[in-house]
Amino acid sequence: MTDLPDAIPAMSETDPPPYFRAHVFVCCNRRPDGHRRGSCAARGSEDLRDYMKARAKELGLKQVRVNQAGCLDRCEFGPTMVIYPEGIWYSPKTRGDVDEILEAHLVQGGRAHRLMITEQDIVGKG
Amino acid sequence: MTDLPDAIPAMSETDPPPYFRAHVFVCCNRRPDGHRRGSCAARGSEDLRDYMKARAKELGLKQVRVNQAGCLDRCEFGPTMVIYPEGIWYSPKTRGDVDEILEAHLVQGGRAHRLMITEQDIVGKG
Repeated sequence: MTDLPDAIPAMSETDPPPYFRAHVFVCCNRRPDGHRRGSCAARGSEDLRDYMKARAKELGLKQVRVNQAGCLDRCEFGPTMVIYPEGIWYSPKTRGDVDEILEAHLVQGGRAHRLMITEQDIVGKG
Repeated sequence: MTDLPDAIPAMSETDPPPYFRAHVFVCCNRRPDGHRRGSCAARGSEDLRDYMKARAKELGLKQVRVNQAGCLDRCEFGPTMVIYPEGIWYSPKTRGDVDEILEAHLVQGGRAHRLMITEQDIVGKG
């Protein structure tokens, strides 16, 4: 194992300004039916991604990008998404949940606390 | 258009700690051959993603995740990748470029300046 610095410097004064104000990644990984871990796509994440993209556009959210991503490795909370640079993880199940995240996080600049994945949810993180 | 706060609060003291120390997203969008914007996959991004995943594992980089992503909308620099939470964008063309990013950014905690996409590269950003 390589010894790493305790924390990669998150920001540097010489870094370019952020290109997106908020960059949302929605896990759209799909495993075969019956896989023991399941997958976000099997739990409906693709529809949530499509809905979020469309609603973000309708709301006129500037410098906000919604992307699909490969397996984010938090399958047990799926469908999962993460918003950077904040690094906030959410577990939306419905389009209503996505509306709540859009409004609380991306419009108001706060957090959709009810839907956040927090340390309390983590069991056996290795 | 919705009026947004000037800056979404990037961090809050009540936020959970970061789940990954570095989260890399490699654009693997593929457009049809001959499309005027081209695409990262058509420029070889899938191989660079596979290589980066494998090398990150071999280097023993902990709490580093390499994911594919849909179109990051910076096609003109493709193949493109972005590393969060720092929000640093890179334009690697070869496996050697990926090695340079791994070493400078993810091992040393600095920047692979030669390969960064900076403001100077942006023409006509709307």
